[in-house]
Amino acid sequence: MQNFTFHNPTKIIFGKDTIPQIGPEAKAYGKKCLLVYGVASIKKSGLYDTVKGILKKEKISVVEHGGVKSNPLLSHARKGVEIAKKEKVEFILAVGGGSVIDESKAIAAGAKGKGKLWEFFTGEAKIQDALPVLTILTIPATGSEMNGGMVITNDETKQKYGFIDPHMSPKVSIMDPVVTMTISPSYTAYSAVDSISHLVEGYFTAPDPWVPAQDKFVEGLVKTIMESTERALAKPDDYQARATFMWCATLAWNGVCSAGIGAFPVPAHMLAHPLGALYDLAHGASLSITQPAWMTYALEKGNVKVPQFAREVFGVRMGSASRRGRKGIEGLKKWFDGIGSPTTLAKANIPESDIPAVADNARDLAHNWALEEYTKEVIAGIYRLAL
Amino acid sequence: MQNFTFHNPTKIIFGKDTIPQIGPEAKAYGKKCLLVYGVASIKKSGLYDTVKGILKKEKISVVEHGGVKSNPLLSHARKGVEIAKKEKVEFILAVGGGSVIDESKAIAAGAKGKGKLWEFFTGEAKIQDALPVLTILTIPATGSEMNGGMVITNDETKQKYGFIDPHMSPKVSIMDPVVTMTISPSYTAYSAVDSISHLVEGYFTAPDPWVPAQDKFVEGLVKTIMESTERALAKPDDYQARATFMWCATLAWNGVCSAGIGAFPVPAHMLAHPLGALYDLAHGASLSITQPAWMTYALEKGNVKVPQFAREVFGVRMGSASRRGRKGIEGLKKWFDGIGSPTTLAKANIPESDIPAVADNARDLAHNWALEEYTKEVIAGIYRLAL
Repeated sequence: MQNFTFHNPTKIIFGKDTIPQIGPEAKAYGKKCLLVYGVASIKKSGLYDTVKGILKKEKISVVEHGGVKSNPLLSHARKGVEIAKKEKVEFILAVGGGSVIDESKAIAAGAKGKGKLWEFFTGEAKIQDALPVLTILTIPATGSEMNGGMVITNDETKQKYGFIDPHMSPKVSIMDPVVTMTISPSYTAYSAVDSISHLVEGYFTAPDPWVPAQDKFVEGLVKTIMESTERALAKPDDYQARATFMWCATLAWNGVCSAGIGAFPVPAHMLAHPLGALYDLAHGASLSITQPAWMTYALEKGNVKVPQFAREVFGVRMGSASRRGRKGIEGLKKWFDGIGSPTTLAKANIPESDIPAVADNARDLAHNWALEEYTKEVIAGIYRLAL
Repeated sequence: MQNFTFHNPTKIIFGKDTIPQIGPEAKAYGKKCLLVYGVASIKKSGLYDTVKGILKKEKISVVEHGGVKSNPLLSHARKGVEIAKKEKVEFILAVGGGSVIDESKAIAAGAKGKGKLWEFFTGEAKIQDALPVLTILTIPATGSEMNGGMVITNDETKQKYGFIDPHMSPKVSIMDPVVTMTISPSYTAYSAVDSISHLVEGYFTAPDPWVPAQDKFVEGLVKTIMESTERALAKPDDYQARATFMWCATLAWNGVCSAGIGAFPVPAHMLAHPLGALYDLAHGASLSITQPAWMTYALEKGNVKVPQFAREVFGVRMGSASRRGRKGIEGLKKWFDGIGSPTTLAKANIPESDIPAVADNARDLAHNWALEEYTKEVIAGIYRLAL
């Protein structure tokens, strides 16, 4: 175990019919809020009206900032900051998935910050203060409802950058699995991929060689995510499956599974972000391409956790470590394919000839994240493993 | 999954050489503290002087309340409340194990409360406010460093009662595994038993029949606790073993493993507390007697988790559920015996003839905890399974 600080003060209110609880919770943070949401789904589902009704009952006045895209854009976040400042909102209520929550966090930081918003993402500025963020989660996947992470795409420079800051943890998150029953099969699949990737990134790259509790948490969650996703795809209104997946996705990236493993890199995310930035590919769909490709690269370099993953998750017990590892990677790819998330660049209509440009974009992020092992050549080589 | 609220705001600072961090952390809570500790060990180890030096450096004045017993007494906690009120301390710093932290929480609640301290334990009064509690954990086991639980023994009535209140979560807990290297073999064993019992109580009694993620967390932690305890007993200064156990014991009872399983009873604890109250038996030593006995009772009543535990933790795959369950219970008893924690009343020198009196005591607690299934006869029957 490595030294660590664990501090996750987000209050989670989880379960059926919990959405009305946002009223009394929100009241504690002020009388005026910025309501941030996505493009259409919360209006279609009726959640928008429900939430507005709850806020009205608590006499909380609402300024709106809708239209967050699934790869949230810096330009849109900047507009949110302007509105938040001009209207002097006291807190932000994010109603949506990880993109909506991430952009809400960016707005919360920007509204209290002095410099340029993008400088928080490049590391040129540090967040000192932020508006409180409360959330109603509609698409479980990113874990943003219970962590300090956020990812934004700079639409001018085509850079998709992210970081984690403890100031950015939401104060309260409401998680009602019922609202996730209408998530489309593809987004159900992408969400599973994203949360599995969150789990295995640290599992494979942990600096500490002996962290059996954290390993077992990850292996257990991956298996549970697979089981509950299969159930939810077979029967979208299976409450137990949706609820189980929803909580697993939070646990996958709220610090519980990684506390003590040491500071770890997230190379499959570094390789996936450019696919989101350049092709607007869904985050989960990007990761089902880059995660297995990165695992193949890591296995070739002798990573011992890939064979362990193969054994614990896919029951692969025979053959050399290298053979077992390959079997595990095949198993994971097959599972991603089976749920309908792409596992090759070709399946996402990204031609081989684009690899140099994609690798350039990834190299910038690798440099920003201090992953100096990942030269342009190494990165291009990994993308080629996903042709 | 059942509806739940999860809110665990304790800041954990974990690792080697982290104790000096109590200085700046404590400073944020005031200029005068009540330092609560046990009988002799922190003076012997030098930790007492270290902590006093750190507090002095931060100009925090210290009022002392030492002498907490391993089953902390109401009378001693009451004295602590008197001192805390008279001296107008601003926060409490607990340096010790679960007993010291539990008594510190009781003092923190009593110092801000109006009624009688014991009424919080009987449920006649509710905690509205409490002094902030900070901790330096020296004996991992109870999880008190990261939850709102506390247990106190009323030395007049010989009742050992406990409850959980969200106000009582420590603000900050420092966990340096190095200080645990000098824990005696018996307390190393008792700590393992206690944390295993915390994990399996909810696992066996969960109202929700399908909670695969929580099950896998529990099974993974039990196996890791067993492995790290064996390593620590073989080599007391094995840092990795001590660190792993220390963090597992926190995770065992901080709400992560039980979120979503529903409100669950803790019958093995109900049966163990009287052994602490009447014989001053260590909490872990009490649980190694009552946990397997309760499992035998539950298996006879058709509990399906006992055979699952046998399979996942002890690899028992053959035979009927009942046979597998029995094998699992045997495995657990054998493991408890192997590490030197008693598994029968006889081994703790409690004669069969005492069972009626012990059962009377347990029945009071069962009633306090609304476990009405546990009549005096049922309770006595379970104790007899541990002869």
